[in-house]
This record gives sequence, structure tokens and C-alpha cells, in this order.
Amino acid sequence: MSGQLAVVGLGPGDARYLTPEAQDALSSAQALYGYAAYLARVPARAGQSRHASDNRAEEARAAAALGDAARGARVAIVSGGDPGVFAMAAAVCAAVETGPESWRALDLTIVPGVTAMLAVAARVGAPLGHDFCALSLSDNLKPWPLIERRLDAAASAGFVIALYNPVARARPWQLGSALERLRRHLPLSTPVVFGRAVGRPDEGVSVTTLAAADPTQADMATLVIVGSRETRVIERAGRAPLVYTPRVAAEVSA
Amino acid sequence: MSGQLAVVGLGPGDARYLTPEAQDALSSAQALYGYAAYLARVPARAGQSRHASDNRAEEARAAAALGDAARGARVAIVSGGDPGVFAMAAAVCAAVETGPESWRALDLTIVPGVTAMLAVAARVGAPLGHDFCALSLSDNLKPWPLIERRLDAAASAGFVIALYNPVARARPWQLGSALERLRRHLPLSTPVVFGRAVGRPDEGVSVTTLAAADPTQADMATLVIVGSRETRVIERAGRAPLVYTPRVAAEVSA
Repeated sequence: MSGQLAVVGLGPGDARYLTPEAQDALSSAQALYGYAAYLARVPARAGQSRHASDNRAEEARAAAALGDAARGARVAIVSGGDPGVFAMAAAVCAAVETGPESWRALDLTIVPGVTAMLAVAARVGAPLGHDFCALSLSDNLKPWPLIERRLDAAASAGFVIALYNPVARARPWQLGSALERLRRHLPLSTPVVFGRAVGRPDEGVSVTTLAAADPTQADMATLVIVGSRETRVIERAGRAPLVYTPRVAAEVSA
Repeated sequence: MSGQLAVVGLGPGDARYLTPEAQDALSSAQALYGYAAYLARVPARAGQSRHASDNRAEEARAAAALGDAARGARVAIVSGGDPGVFAMAAAVCAAVETGPESWRALDLTIVPGVTAMLAVAARVGAPLGHDFCALSLSDNLKPWPLIERRLDAAASAGFVIALYNPVARARPWQLGSALERLRRHLPLSTPVVFGRAVGRPDEGVSVTTLAAADPTQADMATLVIVGSRETRVIERAGRAPLVYTPRVAAEVSA
């Protein structure tokens, strides 16, 4: 009897973004683990146990799911977006590294999904059309000065920047501080995109500028994209503007 | 009569990665445009015209598809992976910006997909589990010194780096040069992942180190991930090693 663990990316929310591979992994699992809000997106299935946990309980969730799989079960952990981007796949790997030897013997599969920055980018055009980076603004797991250093490096080298975890109840000031930091490097006219809950009924996407970007417009479900010097906005009569970063970049000094 | 254009991400290759939204866009299109190798992944459908073009013909392809949509057709352009990441969405936006006013009036939809770095990362664990960047090594559209500057910035600030377009027939030296550049910043033991054609029959994934990474192992279908100082490898008896970047980062100076 050999257990299996799949770490499954649900995509941005709507079932239209769920890949067939992810659907299969969910259907064949005997036990589902996940943050309650993600688990709620998966329809209940007879004979399948469900183990919802709090958002911040990643380590305990990973250990519980691995233990269940090690006892022979087919287990899936669900993750919003892509499980490899600021999500459960790294937590599971960390648990495998420090856990019992039997966890290394498990059949472990990571099922990729559409991560938030791709979904938000798609809604407005192609802001990630050229070199870009993804950076979590949560300083729960890393010191704020390191985040500032990465913001400096990314903006000054011309990367478009996708900001994950921009705010949380316990972290109200980080996004404002990050935007202020980026204003040192980038023109105030630089396009900024706020995308929240893309693919869900309460979706909201807006395009603004680095000058006007209001950090209070973001919540835990928001992904923020800050353009580079090359990022452009195309106005369209009667339609939302398009935001894109050209594939051609000429700038070297900046 | 109002035309529609969807720019559709097929994901890494296999139909298991094709989202229902992408499937719907392909099914409802009257005309399909794309690089021949991507178009070949889409089953033929009666009554649907197909317009294959060369890999490098992005601008002409975008213009042809927009023109077709502007005449009232439901058109889809297919893209490998995600259309917003070094792919057709930016080319379409650029064409809209410079093209006739009627193109701005079109119903334009970008359909996101699983981009190569997510698929490759999933195969080996969670190397993109912390802050990371995506950088194209093609110097067709930007000067090589700008690429070097971005490699320096990303590596020294601790981003994991996903390298798209590492080599091409006309660009044989860029990956070797990039790896050499990264050796200035990162330990020679830094994990490096080569992933080619993930999700296709000729898939090949290997894990090596920055010291041993051999640029001749990459081709046009390869995505390379270079870890940060934090990226770790977990050996597993009888299984491929896991590669992951912990969610926790302590380092500030480096």
C-alpha cells in the first residue's frame, strides 16, 4: 500500500480555470486538505473526507496531509492559483525535508495552475509581456529590508513587478510603503493594475498610475502589478484601456 | 456585426493543461491563427479556418488576426503556455496601438494558461516558492547588456530566475554566457533545473548545479530555472530529488 499526495492548483477561482489534470486529481482523492476558502470551491464528493484549516496553518496542514498519505491514502491538498507560487508546494517540500523518511518515499505530484498574476494580466492586456518578477509583500516570513532591497533591484533593472500578498489585516502598511519605495525609481505615470478576485463573482480590476495608486484599494485577495518604464496604456473608446509591456526593450541605462 | 479576438494560452502542451475557458475559446472560433507548432496541438474542427505561420512572424500574425476579427469574424490566436508571458498577447496589444481605430473597438480577450516555468517548477517541487523573476534570454528584441544587468540585479537581490528562450539556432551562446554571469553572484552549488517540453511525449527534466549546468543541454523548448541562495535539494531514495525554495528568507545582506 503506497500513499499519494497531490498538491493541486485550483487557478484563480472559477471552474473555467481548473485544468483537466487538476480536476482528475481532485476527483480521485480520498481526502482533501486545504485552507477553508479554497476547499469551499471544490464540490463535495461522496466518500471523500475534507479537512479545512486556517489560512496561516500551512505547516500543520502539510504535515497532516503527508501523514495521511503515508498511511496509504490518496490525498490532495488544494491551493489557490498555482501551488508553486507563494503557496502550499513549498510548505509540503519543507515538511518532507524535515519529516520522517517515509514521507520521501511518497508519490508526490504538484499540479500546476493559473497563478493570480497571469489572470490579472490577462484581464488588462499584457503587462507581463516582457521581463518581470513576482514578489510577496508579506514580511511574516522575511525581513522588510529584504523586500525593499528586492523592490529597488527589480524596479531599477526594468522588471515589471507583480506584488503578491500586498496587505493583510495584520499588515496594513506594507503596500503603501512599497509603492512609495517604487516612486524613487519609476516615473509617476507608470501604469499600476489592481486585480482582485479575478474569475470570481466579486472580481474587480482597475488601472491607475504609480502617482495615484491607493494602497487602501487592495485587500488580501488583490494582486498588484506595477509596470516598468516601458509599460504602456492604450485608451479605447467605450472599453477599458489595455495595458501592455512591449516585447522590444531598447533601454540599457536608467 | 462585431468581431471578436481571443488570444488563447494552450498551456505547456498536453490537453490535461488546457483550461475549460481556453477550450471554449478554441471551439467557438471561426478562424485560428498561430505558430504552426502550437496550432498543430489543436484538433481540427469542421468549418474552422486555420492560418499557420512561422515562429518569428508575431507581428504579421497579430495584424492578420485583428484584420479578420475587424471584418466580423470570431478569431482565436493560439499561444503556447500563457499568452501574456513572452508570447502573443503583447504582440496583439502592440498591433492594436499602432493599427486602425477599428481594432480598438474589437472585443479582445486574453485567455490565460499555465506558463512553462510553472509546469517545470511543478515537476521538481517548488523552486519558485519564494520571490522569483522571469527573464527572456533572447537578444533579438533587447540588447545583451540589458539582459546582463537584469541577471546581476535578480541574482544579487536573491530572486530565483526562470530563463525563457534560453537558446535558438541563431543564438547559441546566450545561455552559457548567462550562466557564467550568474556564477559571479551565486554559489556553484546553487540548484539549476532544465525542463524541456513538459507535458509532451518528449519531456525531459533534469536537476543540476550552477557549476555543472551545461548550456548545450538546452534547446528552444527548454525552460531553465536557476535557484537563489535559499533554494534546496531534497534527495529521495528511488525517486527524483525535490527542489524547493523555502517561504522563509532570513538573508538581508549578500
